[in-house]
Amino acid sequence: VTSKAQLELRTALGEAGWITGIASQPYTEDWLKLSANPALGVARPNSTEAVADCVRLCREHHIALVPQGGKTGMVLGSVPGKPEQATVILSLERMHRIEHIDPIGGTVCVEAGVVLDQLQQVLGENNLQIPLHLGSSGSAQIGGLISTNAGGSHAFRDGMMAEQVLGLEVVLPSGDIWQGNRALLKDNAGYALRRLFCGAEGTLGIVTRATLQAVNKPADITTLLLSCENLENALALLGLCRAHTGKLLNAAEFMHAVGVNWVTQHCRDVSFPLESVPPYTVLLEFVSPNAALQLEPIVDHLLSEAMQRELVSDGVQASSEQQRAAMWALRESIPEGQRLHGRQLKHDVAVPVAQIANFIAAASAAVQNIMAGTLVNPFGHMADGNVHFNLSPPAGADIEFFERSDAFNKAVYDTVVQFNGSIAAEHGLGRAKVALADRVRPEVERALMRTIKAAIDPSGFMNPGVIVHMDNDSH
Amino acid sequence: VTSKAQLELRTALGEAGWITGIASQPYTEDWLKLSANPALGVARPNSTEAVADCVRLCREHHIALVPQGGKTGMVLGSVPGKPEQATVILSLERMHRIEHIDPIGGTVCVEAGVVLDQLQQVLGENNLQIPLHLGSSGSAQIGGLISTNAGGSHAFRDGMMAEQVLGLEVVLPSGDIWQGNRALLKDNAGYALRRLFCGAEGTLGIVTRATLQAVNKPADITTLLLSCENLENALALLGLCRAHTGKLLNAAEFMHAVGVNWVTQHCRDVSFPLESVPPYTVLLEFVSPNAALQLEPIVDHLLSEAMQRELVSDGVQASSEQQRAAMWALRESIPEGQRLHGRQLKHDVAVPVAQIANFIAAASAAVQNIMAGTLVNPFGHMADGNVHFNLSPPAGADIEFFERSDAFNKAVYDTVVQFNGSIAAEHGLGRAKVALADRVRPEVERALMRTIKAAIDPSGFMNPGVIVHMDNDSH
Repeated sequence: VTSKAQLELRTALGEAGWITGIASQPYTEDWLKLSANPALGVARPNSTEAVADCVRLCREHHIALVPQGGKTGMVLGSVPGKPEQATVILSLERMHRIEHIDPIGGTVCVEAGVVLDQLQQVLGENNLQIPLHLGSSGSAQIGGLISTNAGGSHAFRDGMMAEQVLGLEVVLPSGDIWQGNRALLKDNAGYALRRLFCGAEGTLGIVTRATLQAVNKPADITTLLLSCENLENALALLGLCRAHTGKLLNAAEFMHAVGVNWVTQHCRDVSFPLESVPPYTVLLEFVSPNAALQLEPIVDHLLSEAMQRELVSDGVQASSEQQRAAMWALRESIPEGQRLHGRQLKHDVAVPVAQIANFIAAASAAVQNIMAGTLVNPFGHMADGNVHFNLSPPAGADIEFFERSDAFNKAVYDTVVQFNGSIAAEHGLGRAKVALADRVRPEVERALMRTIKAAIDPSGFMNPGVIVHMDNDSH
Repeated sequence: VTSKAQLELRTALGEAGWITGIASQPYTEDWLKLSANPALGVARPNSTEAVADCVRLCREHHIALVPQGGKTGMVLGSVPGKPEQATVILSLERMHRIEHIDPIGGTVCVEAGVVLDQLQQVLGENNLQIPLHLGSSGSAQIGGLISTNAGGSHAFRDGMMAEQVLGLEVVLPSGDIWQGNRALLKDNAGYALRRLFCGAEGTLGIVTRATLQAVNKPADITTLLLSCENLENALALLGLCRAHTGKLLNAAEFMHAVGVNWVTQHCRDVSFPLESVPPYTVLLEFVSPNAALQLEPIVDHLLSEAMQRELVSDGVQASSEQQRAAMWALRESIPEGQRLHGRQLKHDVAVPVAQIANFIAAASAAVQNIMAGTLVNPFGHMADGNVHFNLSPPAGADIEFFERSDAFNKAVYDTVVQFNGSIAAEHGLGRAKVALADRVRPEVERALMRTIKAAIDPSGFMNPGVIVHMDNDSH
C-alpha cells in the first residue's frame, strides 16, 4: 500500500514537492537531534490545495502526517514518532510568500512557511514589527510559531503567538480548507476557531496561511543589565517596573550565575559586562513610541529607587545598539552555554509570577534531595512566570545523574503542580512530554482534549502521539 | 417529568437557589426586552458544586439550560429561546466573591457573578484595573463577559475579554468540573481549552470562576474630542496616533453626526462641547504610566501635524476628570440616544481597519437603495474596525421600513462579507443572529462549529439554539 501511496503523493505534489530516500533524512530530525525515525517521504506542497491533496491521500492510506516548520522545537513535535508507523512529513518551506501588509490597520498576511526574521525585516521597512522575540527567530516559521503558540520575551505584555493571530487558513483532517483568514481584531461570530489551532501542534489541522497583528517599531529603546543578590529582589524590581513604566516595559529576563558562567566559559564573542557575576542577572528593557518621549528620567527614577531599596547592587545601561545586542546575546546564549557544558535535563515551566522565587527554592531543594551537587540553572521570562529550570550533573556523575532522569522530572513537575503551574509553558508537549503531562493533568482535562481530538481528527492520523495519546495513535 | 425535575432542583439548590412563578419573570427578559419566554424556574447556585448538580439534573431531565450573567447582551443569548421548550435559567448572581488579588503578578481570581464595576473598584484600591471598558460595566458580570468575549474600547490594544483570561473553572455538560483556573500567562500543556469557552456563550459549559490579568492604572490621562470632515481623515488621524504614540493610545472612538445629534436632543445631562457637530466626531484618549512622563508635548505635536494636514477642523481637550467623563458620556449615550429616537435595526460588525470608510460608504449606499432617506448612524471603535452600523427609518416611514428589515440586514451583512469582515464583532451571535450567520458563513466553518458543539455537549441541552443550530436543539 505504501508504494501506491507514494506514487499518488508524488503525482499530486510534483517532483519538487516529494522527497524520499537520503534527501529526506535531514527532515527526520530537528535541531536537538534526539530522534531520527524514518519517513516514507517529505511532502513539500507549494499551495493550500496541494496541502489538502496531501492530507486526503495520507488519511486514505492510513499514513501518519507530521507537519513541520523550522524544526526549532524542543519536544519532538515536528518529526516522526515511531519507526514502525508509516509517516509522511509535511514541510511548509515552499509556502513562504509575504502576501499583504496593511500599515493603517497594522496587519500582515503570510503563508505558513515564512521565517520570522524575514518577516520582521520586510515589516521593518514599513516601521512595523510582530511583537514576538525569541532565540529561534532566524529559523522558526510562522506556521510552526502558531501551531506551537510560541512565547518569548514580550509575551507578558503583547501576548503569545496566538494573540498575534487575527485570522487563519487551515487544512482540516477531512481535507477541507477552513477559510478563516480574516484581518479582524474583533470577530465573535461563533466559536473562536482560530484559537483552537494555535498551540494544537498540528494535531487538528495544518495552518497554511495567517493574518497577524503588527505594531509600530519603538522610537527609542533602553536596555539594562542589573545585578540582584536574590530572586526576591529581582521580583521587587519587577514590581517597581510595573508601577512606574506600565506598557513601556519591553522585557524582564532573569539569569542565574550558573548559566551566565557557562556562557562566558563556552561561548565565543559573548562577554559579561559587569565586574563580577551576581547570583541573579536581570535584563530590563524599556521602549518609547516617540523620540520626544524621553525614557531617561523614568528609568533614572526607577533605578535610584531600586538602589535605595537595595534591590540592585550593580548595573550597566547599553549606550549603543551594539551593547544592547551584546546584552541580548548573553541572555540568548544561556541554552547554548549549557548545551556546550554537556548533557542536561530541560524543564520549561510556568508558575504565578509572585511564586517564582518560592518555586525555584522548592524545586532546587527537591532535586538536591535526589542528587546533592546537581547544577541548577534557572532562567527565563520573569514577568510571565516562565522559568526554564535546567539541570546538569555534578562533575563526573553523568551516569548516575541520567539514570535518575525520571526522578528529577517527577520532582520538578510535582513541584510545579504544587504551585498550580504549567509543566509546558512555551515549548508545548510534542511527543516528549505527553506521558509526563498525563501523570499530572486532571483526568477531566485530558478527557476534554481527547474529545476535541477525536471529534476533529476521527481517524487520528494528524501528528499522532502529540499533545494527547489516543487509542488509534498507531492505526 | 417537569414537576419531578423542579422538586429535585429545589432540593439540590435550596430555597434561595430556586425561583419559580412570578418571581422568575424578571430573569426571562434582558435589557432590550425583545423576548420573554417563560422558564420552569431560575437556578441561583452559590457554589460550583451546586452549578454541577443543576447541570446534571437538567441533562437527565432533558431540560434546556440557559446560563445568565448581567443580562446586558444584545442577541438574546441569556434568555429562554422557545416557549415550548422546558428551560431552566441558571443565574450566577449569588457567586460574586472576589477571591484573591496578586499585585505582583497582576492577577485577580473571581467567581463568575462578580459585576465588572465592582471588581474595578476593588482593584482600583490596589492601583490595578482590568483593561476592559464598555458601557454595560455597571451590570455585566465576569462570567457573561467571558462567555460572550466582550470587546469595548481598549480591545485594539489590550485584546478582548478572552485575552484577559488566564485561567477558568468550568462546569462541563457532563456535570464534571474542569479545574483550569490557573494564574498563568504561559501554559502550552495541551489545547488552549480556556480559549474555547471564551465567547462560547454558555453552549459548551458554565464558567464558574476565572483568573484575570490586571494592569496598573495609568498615572495620567489625556482625552480629546476632535472634529473630522470625513472618515478618511479620521483614519489618517488614527495612523498618526499609531506612529506617534504606540501603546499610549487608550481609545479611538468615532461617532457620526446623526448619532451625536440624537444624544444632544434626547439625553439629558449630555452636551456637545464643540461649536458645531461635525460629520464625524473622534474621541481620542492617551495614557501615561508615570506622572513624570508628560503626554502634553506628544499630543501637541500630534495635533499640530493633524491640523497642518487638515485632518482635524476643531477640537477640545478635557481639562478635568469631569470634562473627560462628559466626553465618554457623549460616546456611550449614542445607543441610548438612538433608542430614545425610536425603533431601529442594529448591526455590530467588523471590517479591516483600513476599510472602515469604504465599508460605511458601500453599506450606506446599499441601504439607501432599499429605502431612500434611511438614517444611518455608524459609530464605534476605529482602531479595531468595529462599526456599529445602526439604521433608523425616515420620518413617518416606520411601517414600510421595518417591513424591509430582512432586506436591510441582508444588504449590510452581504457588504460585510464583501470586505471579509465579521457580522458579529463584539456582541456575539446569541439566538438572534444564528440564522443570519448561517446565511454567510462558509459551510466548512459551520460544520466545524457543529462538530465541536456535538462533541462537548452531545445531548445539546446547554443554551440550545445559540451560536449554531443543532438537530437536537428542541430535544
